[in-house]
Amino acid sequence: MRLTTTLLALALTTALSAAHAQAPVAATATTRIAPATVQHAEQLRERALADDTAWKFVEGLTTEVGPRLAGSEADARAVKWAEAKFKALGFDKVWTEPVTFPKWERRSESASVVGASSQKLTLTALGGSPGGKVEAEVVRFPDLASLQAVPAGSLAGKIAFIDYRMERAKDGGGYGMGSRVRGAGPSAAIRAGAVAYLMRSAGTDSHRNPHTGITRFDEGLTPIPSAALGAPDADQLARLVARGPTRVHVELDCGWDGTATSYNVIGEMRGRSKPDEVVLIGGHLDSWDLGTGAIDDGAGVAIAVGAAKMIGTMKQRPARTIRVVAFANEEQGLHGGRAYNDKHVGDVRKHLIAAESDFGAGRIYAFNTSAPDYAKAAAQQIADVLAPLGIAYTPTEGGPGPDIGPFAGNGLAWGALRQDGTDYFDYHHTPDDTLDKIDPKALAQNVAAYAVFAYMAADADGDFGSKPGKVVPPKE
Amino acid sequence: MRLTTTLLALALTTALSAAHAQAPVAATATTRIAPATVQHAEQLRERALADDTAWKFVEGLTTEVGPRLAGSEADARAVKWAEAKFKALGFDKVWTEPVTFPKWERRSESASVVGASSQKLTLTALGGSPGGKVEAEVVRFPDLASLQAVPAGSLAGKIAFIDYRMERAKDGGGYGMGSRVRGAGPSAAIRAGAVAYLMRSAGTDSHRNPHTGITRFDEGLTPIPSAALGAPDADQLARLVARGPTRVHVELDCGWDGTATSYNVIGEMRGRSKPDEVVLIGGHLDSWDLGTGAIDDGAGVAIAVGAAKMIGTMKQRPARTIRVVAFANEEQGLHGGRAYNDKHVGDVRKHLIAAESDFGAGRIYAFNTSAPDYAKAAAQQIADVLAPLGIAYTPTEGGPGPDIGPFAGNGLAWGALRQDGTDYFDYHHTPDDTLDKIDPKALAQNVAAYAVFAYMAADADGDFGSKPGKVVPPKE
Repeated sequence: MRLTTTLLALALTTALSAAHAQAPVAATATTRIAPATVQHAEQLRERALADDTAWKFVEGLTTEVGPRLAGSEADARAVKWAEAKFKALGFDKVWTEPVTFPKWERRSESASVVGASSQKLTLTALGGSPGGKVEAEVVRFPDLASLQAVPAGSLAGKIAFIDYRMERAKDGGGYGMGSRVRGAGPSAAIRAGAVAYLMRSAGTDSHRNPHTGITRFDEGLTPIPSAALGAPDADQLARLVARGPTRVHVELDCGWDGTATSYNVIGEMRGRSKPDEVVLIGGHLDSWDLGTGAIDDGAGVAIAVGAAKMIGTMKQRPARTIRVVAFANEEQGLHGGRAYNDKHVGDVRKHLIAAESDFGAGRIYAFNTSAPDYAKAAAQQIADVLAPLGIAYTPTEGGPGPDIGPFAGNGLAWGALRQDGTDYFDYHHTPDDTLDKIDPKALAQNVAAYAVFAYMAADADGDFGSKPGKVVPPKE
Repeated sequence: MRLTTTLLALALTTALSAAHAQAPVAATATTRIAPATVQHAEQLRERALADDTAWKFVEGLTTEVGPRLAGSEADARAVKWAEAKFKALGFDKVWTEPVTFPKWERRSESASVVGASSQKLTLTALGGSPGGKVEAEVVRFPDLASLQAVPAGSLAGKIAFIDYRMERAKDGGGYGMGSRVRGAGPSAAIRAGAVAYLMRSAGTDSHRNPHTGITRFDEGLTPIPSAALGAPDADQLARLVARGPTRVHVELDCGWDGTATSYNVIGEMRGRSKPDEVVLIGGHLDSWDLGTGAIDDGAGVAIAVGAAKMIGTMKQRPARTIRVVAFANEEQGLHGGRAYNDKHVGDVRKHLIAAESDFGAGRIYAFNTSAPDYAKAAAQQIADVLAPLGIAYTPTEGGPGPDIGPFAGNGLAWGALRQDGTDYFDYHHTPDDTLDKIDPKALAQNVAAYAVFAYMAADADGDFGSKPGKVVPPKE
């Protein structure tokens, strides 16, 4: 999951609701779901809870490929792996669509306190950081605002350190500020004259596994080495700085290196009567390089694949096609989602509705959709079948995932299946994002929910409001 | 904490009980503690619960010195730091005693799966491992016995991998086998012909922070690179090996390099009437290099220091002296404890009783002592004052800590204040052994218990059975 998913979601919920409210109510008949479809969905839900396709998928991807930083050799392997797996799972059509982006590499990184309290610090470069070797005194700031408030040039020759503690929340709300510290901190540090930027990891754990994630540098600024400390290391640095002047040596070997091309991997289970219309579900195939990308986002792709597989093996397929998209390079700028939007934006009406899983493998506890008034009854029908999974219908909360965000900004209807992310930021973007952090039962609950959602939408009589039209361009 | 503390404790409990049973009952009068002393101990206990000397000590040591591998520059700093701190805290006498030992260094370490599933593995060299670069196929064994059972030479050119999962237990009992896998695994691997040894970390967590710890190689064998994988990495390697032949590249730069001299740091709060007799409490000052040695064993030294400080500031000191020993190089072979034994073994009777804290900072839940029958009533008196701290008297369980083990093997009476170690092996010997893992309230409960124990023993009328005599030499 990337920068501002939650914020983006909230912004879009509001924006799209407003947009739909303004749409002419007329023309479109009420969208409904047939009683037989509801019944099949209930059976599908129970079958999905007992199915291990998703578990095997994420087990295989994280084991056989492992970490798959966008543009790396392993990313290319992941694309081939996913394509082969989609075929093996019986998708009717499997293809790839190219996605080109700047390539960033991490080679090595280290840091240490120098002087009387000489000791190593555990850190990791932020994605997008340049390499560099810096030794300087550290100035600590409790939050982003306090760094942004210092006069230009006042940190000349110093290392700026934001020691902000991200808050734990079921809906991941703490990541809003956590990711801003990562995204906006480096530029604030540069304006203040700093020679490097350090931050307490945007995470909720207390382990020495720092959290990476993309950062950016505002136009016209010269990037500086930027890295995140493990939580215990941030504690340590704060204690040392409180005792007196503290110098830190930071050495990062990383940076941008040309461009790379990866691929959105797409598989379809064809619909029985309207195969050209699709319900899109997916996640992103790339991961950060530190862990094996189990919760971010092997799980998301696996959930979509598992749901599609369940629907594909029903006695009677839904009317429309289920399309699974494993997006390329979400982590460094929604590149796969943007490419998908660019290629398919003319077909927005053919995309009945979309839902993306990119918040780990925790249980889904809430459902929402951008469905306009004429499709609200169908949304309620879906919610009723989801309810036994412990999923509440919360029509005013949640939004599209990051990769369907660009398309949602161009009129794509979306569903949101909101996961419990209480522990998500303990592992997110760290070496600890590994398979053991996934509870197979929670994963199966996700699959059941996605299967119900995708099947019922794909078999609905009527649409969910997808139509061309700029709503609000999603934030990055 | 080192290799076989728990086993050693159990062995000694039995051995010493037997020894005491055989001692002539005669001569010694019953040891008792005066009612006024009991009353003062109760007041001391309550004061200690509110005191932060121990917290400040461990906060300072882990922050200002940080990791302090025996024989390193940081270890020398730790000795100076502790000496100065003892003086600042008002110990009446502070001195050091040299401890010389072979010096082992860790410089760098890395590993990766090579081939189709190429990816990094997180590992750490075992203490005592030689360096080396090895690339070979991995053969997995579920436990030590199965590796020990293979024919000599049958693993020629292979890497032996023991994938044993250590069990979580309040008393740390799982470490018995966990540490044997670490201590005996490499020699078993060498006998089988292996070129390197890998093990699942002896720990109970599921983080990518591997657990180091000392290993040894049996006489006459040529050491091979030996390392512990993080738990998720062991999972991963097991899954890969189950899929088919898996090659791993291991690169360790580490090894023995001459000898080093460090110091036991000793401080005394003098007794009011029998100052030449001492109650010894302590922990070890060295740590492994990966974390900052907070739970292992900054906490232990801090607890002893905090307790001594409380006793030192009583209106009336106990009859005997409280001696705090911060032992040197426990981790690599009880070097400080052995040196102390060698130097003081002639004075065993002057050491009334000893207790050592080396099992983290969890709450103490049980008390025991080697007290012979004539001192059992006094032990019960101590137990009664400990009881309100949630500490049970368990006369048949527990034994001396590792560093007082050698001396206990020569007749030193000991007390055992057993800590809840349920979480101890989540952090033990990992980068995650940092200050944030200590609960200040649990630490204060430890201080209160040590203060009660040391004060009451030091003020007792009579002894606790210390006397010259070989009991059973402690295991290493």
